[in-house]
Amino acid sequence: MILTLKRGISKKEIKRIENKIRSFGFRPHISRGAKDITVGVIGENAILLKEFFESDPAVASIAQISKPYKLSSRQIHPKDTRLTVGNSKIGGGHFAIIAGPCSVESRKQIISIAKEVKKCGAKFLRGGAFKPRTSPYSFQGLGEEGLKYLAQAKKITGLPVVTEVMQISQIEVVSKYADVLQIGARNMQNFNLLKEIGKAKKPVLLKRGMSATITELLMAAEYIMSSGNSKIILCERGIRTFSDQTRFTLDISAIPVLKKETHLPVIVDPSHATGKRDLVPPMALAALAAGADGIMVEVHIKPDTALSDSAQTINIPTFKKLVKDISCIAKVLEKKV
Amino acid sequence: MILTLKRGISKKEIKRIENKIRSFGFRPHISRGAKDITVGVIGENAILLKEFFESDPAVASIAQISKPYKLSSRQIHPKDTRLTVGNSKIGGGHFAIIAGPCSVESRKQIISIAKEVKKCGAKFLRGGAFKPRTSPYSFQGLGEEGLKYLAQAKKITGLPVVTEVMQISQIEVVSKYADVLQIGARNMQNFNLLKEIGKAKKPVLLKRGMSATITELLMAAEYIMSSGNSKIILCERGIRTFSDQTRFTLDISAIPVLKKETHLPVIVDPSHATGKRDLVPPMALAALAAGADGIMVEVHIKPDTALSDSAQTINIPTFKKLVKDISCIAKVLEKKV
Amino acid sequence: MILTLKRGISKKEIKRIENKIRSFGFRPHISRGAKDITVGVIGENAILLKEFFESDPAVASIAQISKPYKLSSRQIHPKDTRLTVGNSKIGGGHFAIIAGPCSVESRKQIISIAKEVKKCGAKFLRGGAFKPRTSPYSFQGLGEEGLKYLAQAKKITGLPVVTEVMQISQIEVVSKYADVLQIGARNMQNFNLLKEIGKAKKPVLLKRGMSATITELLMAAEYIMSSGNSKIILCERGIRTFSDQTRFTLDISAIPVLKKETHLPVIVDPSHATGKRDLVPPMALAALAAGADGIMVEVHIKPDTALSDSAQTINIPTFKKLVKDISCIAKVLEKKV
Amino acid sequence: MILTLKRGISKKEIKRIENKIRSFGFRPHISRGAKDITVGVIGENAILLKEFFESDPAVASIAQISKPYKLSSRQIHPKDTRLTVGNSKIGGGHFAIIAGPCSVESRKQIISIAKEVKKCGAKFLRGGAFKPRTSPYSFQGLGEEGLKYLAQAKKITGLPVVTEVMQISQIEVVSKYADVLQIGARNMQNFNLLKEIGKAKKPVLLKRGMSATITELLMAAEYIMSSGNSKIILCERGIRTFSDQTRFTLDISAIPVLKKETHLPVIVDPSHATGKRDLVPPMALAALAAGADGIMVEVHIKPDTALSDSAQTINIPTFKKLVKDISCIAKVLEKKV
Repeated sequence: MILTLKRGISKKEIKRIENKIRSFGFRPHISRGAKDITVGVIGENAILLKEFFESDPAVASIAQISKPYKLSSRQIHPKDTRLTVGNSKIGGGHFAIIAGPCSVESRKQIISIAKEVKKCGAKFLRGGAFKPRTSPYSFQGLGEEGLKYLAQAKKITGLPVVTEVMQISQIEVVSKYADVLQIGARNMQNFNLLKEIGKAKKPVLLKRGMSATITELLMAAEYIMSSGNSKIILCERGIRTFSDQTRFTLDISAIPVLKKETHLPVIVDPSHATGKRDLVPPMALAALAAGADGIMVEVHIKPDTALSDSAQTINIPTFKKLVKDISCIAKVLEKKV
Repeated sequence: MILTLKRGISKKEIKRIENKIRSFGFRPHISRGAKDITVGVIGENAILLKEFFESDPAVASIAQISKPYKLSSRQIHPKDTRLTVGNSKIGGGHFAIIAGPCSVESRKQIISIAKEVKKCGAKFLRGGAFKPRTSPYSFQGLGEEGLKYLAQAKKITGLPVVTEVMQISQIEVVSKYADVLQIGARNMQNFNLLKEIGKAKKPVLLKRGMSATITELLMAAEYIMSSGNSKIILCERGIRTFSDQTRFTLDISAIPVLKKETHLPVIVDPSHATGKRDLVPPMALAALAAGADGIMVEVHIKPDTALSDSAQTINIPTFKKLVKDISCIAKVLEKKV
Repeated sequence: MILTLKRGISKKEIKRIENKIRSFGFRPHISRGAKDITVGVIGENAILLKEFFESDPAVASIAQISKPYKLSSRQIHPKDTRLTVGNSKIGGGHFAIIAGPCSVESRKQIISIAKEVKKCGAKFLRGGAFKPRTSPYSFQGLGEEGLKYLAQAKKITGLPVVTEVMQISQIEVVSKYADVLQIGARNMQNFNLLKEIGKAKKPVLLKRGMSATITELLMAAEYIMSSGNSKIILCERGIRTFSDQTRFTLDISAIPVLKKETHLPVIVDPSHATGKRDLVPPMALAALAAGADGIMVEVHIKPDTALSDSAQTINIPTFKKLVKDISCIAKVLEKKV
Repeated sequence: MILTLKRGISKKEIKRIENKIRSFGFRPHISRGAKDITVGVIGENAILLKEFFESDPAVASIAQISKPYKLSSRQIHPKDTRLTVGNSKIGGGHFAIIAGPCSVESRKQIISIAKEVKKCGAKFLRGGAFKPRTSPYSFQGLGEEGLKYLAQAKKITGLPVVTEVMQISQIEVVSKYADVLQIGARNMQNFNLLKEIGKAKKPVLLKRGMSATITELLMAAEYIMSSGNSKIILCERGIRTFSDQTRFTLDISAIPVLKKETHLPVIVDPSHATGKRDLVPPMALAALAAGADGIMVEVHIKPDTALSDSAQTINIPTFKKLVKDISCIAKVLEKKV
């Protein structure tokens, strides 16, 4: 961390700043420019002192040097993390396709969809049992019953199951049935949930909040990792912008930025990002081309009758064509699907 | 809800749409324009059908007519809601000043601040015991110990206490000590927490999420109200935008918009919104001038030594001057402070 | 356009609204819902009346039905527009690669870059002679001298030239030397410039403003087309969002949205969007995969010595590899490069 | 400017960086932290070198120290700039009210509005003769005829006239009739127009672009000032965000930020920012309370018949009440209206 001091500051003030830095157990390092005096704050995690200097009357500005995240950083762990769940792999050259309905609606529905997406080439099954809905008057999911149906679909198809955990008290029950625990975008900064899920043994699919910066996403991963769980899949799912033709703006550039910053696998959810089913295939292909390690898409046998997210759900033939296109492009990019 | 059909659609398709509407128990109403055919969907809560028509191949677009929120709406409850907590009032012509440190740091700290802000004219005491922090390596609050200190400060000063609840399991303990339960911006769409807090008897201070629309904020209030608690204070605290000179962009225009849409009191938090202490007084005055029912500000006796949010915390003399300015302007606007 | 009237409105008021609609030469069409009365406004371009009803005391809300753009719309012109410039094609199945330095710096520089990018597979040469710079103290371009060098580079390589026009008085001189006239993002709503360039005979590359909606981009194209020039290439180049790891957020989803709305070719500029050279190749491939008709990238023989945009400029080997990847993926997508 | 070097860099590379800095005529200053080596670049305007180091393989990050704007900065000119136009003052303790219709529609219209707003307490008359409109099919203004009517209204009322200049060729004719030349938000980065208007002798009202940062606004002012004209009024008029209940989000916090950074007067346009007439008075009062030096509002005798911006235009009684409220609050804040 580097402090730039205000111009025309007295020697006494400079001395005070030096002592303040020392009082925290750090070392000051003065450096004089043409017009400005800067002070380096030297020591481990110096950035944590930032808030103590931000309003100091002698300080004009503060520049950060080290990154605030550690465990998720590629600096510390340069090699790609590859996760293996059942027979499915993600990251480190493996592009994983996660597919299924928005909500589990019935035993029959989830099993028939699971069979179909498996046949097309999906590697994971998704489906919501606990549903976060903007309106208290909307369908809220089947709860544990839905989890049981997911487990049955897994038994039949062999596809590992990804499903959302909305609160701490659900971690246990969801862990019983599911293979990957999903943290939704609206819970990305539910720090207590992150800490508790960090104690679970299952891999976590962590969605980026709709207004989270990339640093904040990595800090959320850091919460989970610092609690002991490092099996994390990051998921870009669109950010809030002024643009009004899609539900969110899918930040495709987050993929190469994240791949550079972190060793964790990075996937994309084009269904929630766009909110429109005809945009799902082009955005899925764009994610692959930009370097993603997988996609998560909403698929239904009869999308128009889906109890939630109908407008963004694709049908089986569209999904089949999409997997075929992915396979061809993945080959060019030397990724395994 | 009004559907605009695609151009050149067949009579059979129009018939199908009419039947689909009737199958949900609603009534269709066809209307032919110069180029477009529109279909009104008539019945209570027609908008809940929206998702079933969004991807219908015959539908070009959908226009919403009724609001999705009910209990928080001024249409249903035209008169201002005024809350009375202890001897303090908020809403309905009463402008409430909520002040205190970001975090409770010690018994002595919170009591001395409480006394000072009381003397200056604060009507509520704020202070965090459970702290949501972006980094797992930052100070996380004193927990229940902090709540006890807050209760002691209340006993001494008579100021009702506002403090944050971060998860369902904390509702009980926080309710034991605090007068107003705060839901932080990052939890605005933690729907399970909203539902549970709706069962609590205490007033709730609900902060707008940093990327939440005004409709989403009112839908979050709807979650709480539909669970039985209608004592809600809404709080604008800044939204995420590209603008980079303040931590968030305080959306002052949200105040008159909310005051028109809802009967609930609306306050503003200029400390978290701006992240800079010298911006707190002007933005607090702006909030008052725009029609807010109160402000919540971070105040500390020695802001530079505060364990969190130091940069946005004002000191006692600044707070005193601010309260004085508020009183003078409130008089012009015929509000009681 | 459909007006929803305020609830509890008098018959007299409804009559007044009907007459107001008729007074503009349109036809009203009343329709009564469960709770709301709506009035369709029937006739060509009814939406232009919107502003006359927005604050009418009897109107609760207004829903738009027709699109405000005509000539650029696929409804009116369903088939893809394909432009041919010299021997280069863009749109209608042809993916065009436009490459060159940010600024023309010298005769030697532009000619050597032109030769290299041609060899790699570029179909157009880009290069700025008149440069819009945020600071008045930065390099502002070589002006007409730069245009001459571009024309010489074209003569040698056969590559048609794309270069920016910043003001009306430059249209003539730029048209003399260049093949495609570029309108920069900051001028997308410089309406007078759009009208004048609409009278030019040359194709226009119109960049999306950094905060323009897709509708506004199409309205800007409408300005040019309604002045007589329909040879327009639309260019997505990143929008302003809160996301802080890239200069702008490249809105890849704008590509399929635009391809559905308009028949005009749509390209992407990953260099200006990201501001970082290592993000240029992944984002260029993402654009192709999402359905773009081309890319425009900044290429330099020694990027580190470029007089402008050095950080986002790629070198020749990187460009060569990128063109190769594009060719392979384009084959999968059945596009000609 | 401070460069942080990549970790594990060789001595040879450090030497190369030092020489590169010297080759530009600056002085390097090495400083070693716990983990990082930083290099200060010392000399006037070092920040202009930023682009030459951004992609240097040895550089991890760059921190800026000095501001890129000079003439508009309060560092260089600490005292408030106060402008006097005719008998009207703005800045330095004077709060100026600028009022009038969106467009000049007729001689009679502008004169009658001018008389009324004068009577209520306006200090400047606004009115558009050249209108930037999103659609080529909308009313585009009366042109020079409108300017003449404005001049007549000025003659009768004595109110100085503010009107927009959309392109370089209009500067001369607008200067002939108007007292203050307005640069619209969409032209804030029309750099050629800024340079030319910098040669005009009249004061300039410069509106912030809808996606411009505060630094970019000050850089636009810098263009005008560096061309010789320092009589500039800055105007906040709303920024593009995801928030959807107002046309733009009025960034009230920009006022105190600008007042700290620059000596130039800062005003607010609540009409264009909100797009809704009932939000104009509260936002105008908020602007005053936050420290603005004036407001510009759209006023019409019959707002519902206005040819443009009808929905955001207030009538005379509303304006009268607003001026009265402003006067009372201004007194509290010790400003002259």
